[in-house]
Amino acid sequence: MQPTPKRKRVVVIGAGFGGMQAAQSLSKSGADILLIDRNNYNTFVPLLYQVAAAQIEPELIAYPVRTILRRAERTQFLQAEAKCIDFAHQVVETDSGSFPYDYLVIATGSRTQYLGVRGAVENAFALRTLDQAVALRNHILRRLEQASQEPDLLLRKQLLTFVVVGGGPTGVEMAGTLVGLKKAVIKDYPTLSLNELRIVLVQSGDNLLGNLPDRLGRYTVRTLSRLDVTVLFEKRVSRVTSQSIEFQDGSSLPTTTVVWAAGLEAEMPPVTAKPAVARKQKIRVRPTLQLISYDNVYVIGDLAHVQQQEKSLAGVAPEALQQGVMVARNISRQMKGKAPKPFSYFNKGRLAIIGGYSGVGKIGPFLLTGFLPWLMWLSVHLVYLPGFRSRLLVLLSWLHGYGMGDRAIRLILPSSPFVFQDRTLSTNKLLTLAKSTILS
Amino acid sequence: MQPTPKRKRVVVIGAGFGGMQAAQSLSKSGADILLIDRNNYNTFVPLLYQVAAAQIEPELIAYPVRTILRRAERTQFLQAEAKCIDFAHQVVETDSGSFPYDYLVIATGSRTQYLGVRGAVENAFALRTLDQAVALRNHILRRLEQASQEPDLLLRKQLLTFVVVGGGPTGVEMAGTLVGLKKAVIKDYPTLSLNELRIVLVQSGDNLLGNLPDRLGRYTVRTLSRLDVTVLFEKRVSRVTSQSIEFQDGSSLPTTTVVWAAGLEAEMPPVTAKPAVARKQKIRVRPTLQLISYDNVYVIGDLAHVQQQEKSLAGVAPEALQQGVMVARNISRQMKGKAPKPFSYFNKGRLAIIGGYSGVGKIGPFLLTGFLPWLMWLSVHLVYLPGFRSRLLVLLSWLHGYGMGDRAIRLILPSSPFVFQDRTLSTNKLLTLAKSTILS
Repeated sequence: MQPTPKRKRVVVIGAGFGGMQAAQSLSKSGADILLIDRNNYNTFVPLLYQVAAAQIEPELIAYPVRTILRRAERTQFLQAEAKCIDFAHQVVETDSGSFPYDYLVIATGSRTQYLGVRGAVENAFALRTLDQAVALRNHILRRLEQASQEPDLLLRKQLLTFVVVGGGPTGVEMAGTLVGLKKAVIKDYPTLSLNELRIVLVQSGDNLLGNLPDRLGRYTVRTLSRLDVTVLFEKRVSRVTSQSIEFQDGSSLPTTTVVWAAGLEAEMPPVTAKPAVARKQKIRVRPTLQLISYDNVYVIGDLAHVQQQEKSLAGVAPEALQQGVMVARNISRQMKGKAPKPFSYFNKGRLAIIGGYSGVGKIGPFLLTGFLPWLMWLSVHLVYLPGFRSRLLVLLSWLHGYGMGDRAIRLILPSSPFVFQDRTLSTNKLLTLAKSTILS
Repeated sequence: MQPTPKRKRVVVIGAGFGGMQAAQSLSKSGADILLIDRNNYNTFVPLLYQVAAAQIEPELIAYPVRTILRRAERTQFLQAEAKCIDFAHQVVETDSGSFPYDYLVIATGSRTQYLGVRGAVENAFALRTLDQAVALRNHILRRLEQASQEPDLLLRKQLLTFVVVGGGPTGVEMAGTLVGLKKAVIKDYPTLSLNELRIVLVQSGDNLLGNLPDRLGRYTVRTLSRLDVTVLFEKRVSRVTSQSIEFQDGSSLPTTTVVWAAGLEAEMPPVTAKPAVARKQKIRVRPTLQLISYDNVYVIGDLAHVQQQEKSLAGVAPEALQQGVMVARNISRQMKGKAPKPFSYFNKGRLAIIGGYSGVGKIGPFLLTGFLPWLMWLSVHLVYLPGFRSRLLVLLSWLHGYGMGDRAIRLILPSSPFVFQDRTLSTNKLLTLAKSTILS
């Protein structure tokens, strides 16, 4: 009897669209898979803006990683923060121990890029994580409560001005859904009137949705204007404070709410030797998605700088999903001694949702505007949302929300700092105790 | 033409069952109503334990106060913290200004009472607010993640021991639902086995559910034992640490999770002259629910010490609801120059849910056990839950959860490392420290 060859170990860092898909596809490869993420859930990022606008519960777009992996063979999950990747020794160090790998897939995604704008990190709201979405929801609802009690008209106007920076899909979605929120909640605030709430979308260029054909961008501008969103073009932000947003042309707007949807940059865990990067800190990879200097390390999703037909990929979910499948296939090929194949993205089309039952889309050569792409956007995202229960509950929320023009959630959470402070307090106390024990 | 008499102002503090009902009933009285609460939502407290056990989303049992009051005439809501009640000058001072009243309803409810047990405030988990429920959910799920990576069997056992203190309805519900959580999540942790998770219910007396007939308590004990819950009787807690629970008889249990459901005390905002209190800081009131020293101040719900047939009321939702109606009626009578009438509680019965499709109940002279009171408990709570959308989504969650034996939520939120990871880290440090201290 021959000794069975030792099973290969694959570590995947990041449980977003790319990493999750890679782990699932790899589970049939015969290798031992370890998936690492700092959260125990996968966030369905495309619907984050609906959480921020009180349309759906945060739990509905976050799905436990372990449940997704339930049927995946030889696949383990570890909730941990990757602290360092040692390419030379083939080890991933985390805050919960070190894990050697034969093959590594890095899929840690991207984070908000503030473009060096002063005060943006401190005062603007990002929309990349579930926490951020809930924080933004709390903030917006709190401004409404404050404004409803504010007699000073100028302060009131400042509290009720909501500025979204960035004319890409996220900025457009956020501005559009704020219109719906405005119409829904106004019923509950007898002391506020609809025209007091102002939504401003700030764009550095001269059109919206730069990744889609011009005509769709112009349709989006018209739709948002019809919904009473003020769209400002050719405006570059110079500074964000807790009370205002200031522009490079010297103008400014008094506001206490700035949503930052103006850009992303790749987020890579610390490594022993930093690979070559392209723009937005994205890692340069071979056409096979392998790192240039390491055959057994793959980079996918928002983190990877992938060129196709002279253009870099846009950083959308379908790209990451297809790359997740490809990387699993390539690792399986390598384990069998074959060469990995180059990745090629199959673009099924692009959709963007605006609001007021309108969207835009490009499917093959066809440009779509209006209700059809709006409905398609919702349908596609409903189908891709993980979990039967979440899908059903989101569908019901949409029927309720879009059908009755209402937003059911609207809670300012967490309501009291006491829970967390006490815990922190006790930890601090214990640490103090621990320190004093060490010292004595 | 006669001058119209100035409208009376009624201030209601607290938007729980009692205050919410009082404000709604008062809206027909012709007076101007101001409802004040520190949160912008009403919490459906009876289902908090299901939030803590990852059965339903927190948003589903919290309903915006403004939406409840949408159709209530001349009723305003203010999100603020009551800082002082000045009975002499008839003013409620809050952190958002001062509000004069002609009539005042105080319905600020109760908070967890720790009975002076050392370390309980810092280390035990209360279950009275939405934040606390989410914090407990996070904590429990994090312990499972930690345990799944812990090779040391003793530490593993400590992480997987969940202790609930208090044998009243909340303690029983919590212990029972942890059994469901255990069975549901174990599928996702291939490295944990079902019998490693231990649920302990600690009771100071010799039976559970003291407010119900003995027979129902004994049935509850048998049911919990069948569900593998260890019920400890005649145990009084002397101390809770982050690593253990200690009892007055000298015994102790290593655990990192202690849920405190052992008692409540009334929570009254600061006042200029403190009224007479009965046990558990409850305020003594006249049979009409008026304060003894002030005709125009009413106290209802958990805050009020109401005697009926020589027994004090139990502090359940139906009592508060009926008192809310009564107080509105009495204030209306006073405004017309009539004398207020005494309150009389109509007890429709009591139900308690255990788990494993079992509950107990007392309806009139009938004692019920098993599936029927379990189903009745769920139905009654579904009917009383505010909001059509919430009701539908909770129903679907129950069908999914009880039907398929699954828990869909299971997210450790907020994910931001600043709040929780520090604590975990420090816990590990402390464990290391503790070990080294023991060894040295």
